[in-house]
Amino acid sequence: TVFKVAAIPGDGIGVDITEAAKEVLNKLAQCDGTFRFDFTTFDWSSKAYLERGWYMPEDAIATLKKHDAIYFGAVGWPSVPDHISLWNMILPIRKELNQYVNVRPTRILPGTKSPLVGCQKDPKQLDWIIVRENSEGEYAGQGGTTHGHENYAVATELAIFSYVGIERIMRFAFETAKQRPRKKLTMVTKSNAQRHGMVLWDKVFYTVAKEYEGVVEFDKMLVDAMTVRMVNRPDSLDVIVATNLHADILSDLAAALAGSIGIAPSSNLDPSRKYPSMFEPIHGSAPDIAGKGIANPLGAFWSAAEMVRWLGAGKLDAQADTLMQAIENVTVAGVKTRDLGGDRGTQEVTKAVLDQVERL
Amino acid sequence: TVFKVAAIPGDGIGVDITEAAKEVLNKLAQCDGTFRFDFTTFDWSSKAYLERGWYMPEDAIATLKKHDAIYFGAVGWPSVPDHISLWNMILPIRKELNQYVNVRPTRILPGTKSPLVGCQKDPKQLDWIIVRENSEGEYAGQGGTTHGHENYAVATELAIFSYVGIERIMRFAFETAKQRPRKKLTMVTKSNAQRHGMVLWDKVFYTVAKEYEGVVEFDKMLVDAMTVRMVNRPDSLDVIVATNLHADILSDLAAALAGSIGIAPSSNLDPSRKYPSMFEPIHGSAPDIAGKGIANPLGAFWSAAEMVRWLGAGKLDAQADTLMQAIENVTVAGVKTRDLGGDRGTQEVTKAVLDQVERL
Ligand SMILES: CC(C)[C@H](C(=O)O)[C@@H](O)C(=O)O
Ligand SMILES: CC(C)[C@H](C(=O)O)[C@@H](O)C(=O)O
Repeated sequence: TVFKVAAIPGDGIGVDITEAAKEVLNKLAQCDGTFRFDFTTFDWSSKAYLERGWYMPEDAIATLKKHDAIYFGAVGWPSVPDHISLWNMILPIRKELNQYVNVRPTRILPGTKSPLVGCQKDPKQLDWIIVRENSEGEYAGQGGTTHGHENYAVATELAIFSYVGIERIMRFAFETAKQRPRKKLTMVTKSNAQRHGMVLWDKVFYTVAKEYEGVVEFDKMLVDAMTVRMVNRPDSLDVIVATNLHADILSDLAAALAGSIGIAPSSNLDPSRKYPSMFEPIHGSAPDIAGKGIANPLGAFWSAAEMVRWLGAGKLDAQADTLMQAIENVTVAGVKTRDLGGDRGTQEVTKAVLDQVERL
Repeated sequence: TVFKVAAIPGDGIGVDITEAAKEVLNKLAQCDGTFRFDFTTFDWSSKAYLERGWYMPEDAIATLKKHDAIYFGAVGWPSVPDHISLWNMILPIRKELNQYVNVRPTRILPGTKSPLVGCQKDPKQLDWIIVRENSEGEYAGQGGTTHGHENYAVATELAIFSYVGIERIMRFAFETAKQRPRKKLTMVTKSNAQRHGMVLWDKVFYTVAKEYEGVVEFDKMLVDAMTVRMVNRPDSLDVIVATNLHADILSDLAAALAGSIGIAPSSNLDPSRKYPSMFEPIHGSAPDIAGKGIANPLGAFWSAAEMVRWLGAGKLDAQADTLMQAIENVTVAGVKTRDLGGDRGTQEVTKAVLDQVERL
């Protein structure tokens, strides 16, 4: 099988880690022999935008649709306002390809450490999957500004929640929980202060929950109290479902509590498989360390493993597991970047993972 | 001086801790001799609502305006939907009394422990003041639901940011930072994904910042990345300013990282002093431990200390400091509730603080 993958390295460390991920993916395919990747790399980035005035060409979405998956590095650069770069790259891709689920697994990799005292002895305490609504809510993109240049300006952000949008993410979250050993789902909301959209969110959750009664154990948390529970009782959580903004915040916190944002992967999925799904580490372009060769490529490799799992649709799970095992062998061996307390560079870690993939 | 204080115990543990706070405040006044409190207690609560059908009477706001300050316990009870209880009590009070600032100090009290490995040796690493916009933004209260009973319902939450609203909170935040030893302010935003309200938020921040150049050191963080920084580099933060929702989330996280949500205080301020300000611990009604006599009263006492400071307007700082010292002597002595790793009840901790106030 040949998988056509659109690679979008983007900005900053996105470039280094996408290169590394391609190498690792090619090695994995080569060792396996039953599949291979056909990568097309697109130079859509802030750097290109500053030179030519646009991020993606008119036919970008149509082009992407011709691929089996998208591998995304990072976007965002100090010389372009963030809302310009993001609304010209990552956000339209997520929306127009109907990638309405964003899956963010978090756990403490062997050989790495959580900053939480309670997880020092037993890293297994923290093992979560955050299911993020990825198509509407606070990122619906509506809202506007009036009197923008005056000191009496008023600006709005309009969060939109639709029954259809909520129901499908809840269903995905319950199905995810059902496949986990502990079968637990925690739904996050802020329906005490936000009494329209979030109240609908709660209502649809409980409607879908009826179908999983006795199968999945579920509960509800307010987003503020959820941060406290993540810190104090990580072992009480399993799968978590939250809105676009809430899950954005909680998944960064989750990655920090698990040891480093540098290892955290994400999958932007269209569960109907009508359009290609997109895989990206969650760390972003990290301008402060870009070009220094010290970026942690593990979030990129973990994302790559998720891509293999998704593309295989059940048939390449062993290969995805091999890549995860390779990553873990490398962290256990202490070959780690600075963010994980090590002193190795991106290339050394990549080399070590390539060796492991070859060996396994 | 006599301070007229409206006490609203509200729900759950709010009742116990308000009673305890009144005792401590009376003792503080009695030992000092230059001021005293005239408390009027209002039975506005979910319990009363379930009996008589309303939370606050028509003239509640007018009544509250006749007081010098409001002491608030907690509101929220499982048998009433949270958005009903909150929009009938705490949120209208904050809004109608123009309490547009919510100040939330967080630090690790001596004798207590942070769950962060990095703060075990040096608790001074975590010492923050979160300045929360308390009057608009995501809590503007606008938005609605269409087709509410159908499976194609659509609901919205409309966040509103006004120049006036942003400017005044930024000014308050810079003034707060200016008075701190480290003089640092970190502004939190999500202007990469939310490109209207949050972009105005950024713009006004930088406008106000010009006046503080060279006086206050300032920087900007995205709310998701902010959680990572709070976990990884607590000592890099001092004063933090954020929107209503963002600061709600970050202040709960802050309290958890400092050791317990049970100690965290908040002040809802009208800086113009036209209307009474309101003081409340941030823990909420905690139905799971209500009535068990084990609630931590320290968040309530710390809030009481902030009330004394505010009422004194510079003249009762020593008295507020005495109360804080009493609290710290008690934590150092190990007289602590369960949430802080101790085994004492609300009354024992209260008694210990009363003794310390008397002694100091
Ligand atoms: C870059 C940004 C728009 C993005 C988001 O907020 O979705 C990022 O923070 C993420 O978590 O994927
Ligand atoms: C009770 C609730 C409305 C409130 C809020 O979100 O403001 C609480 O969480 C707080 O932080 O004061």
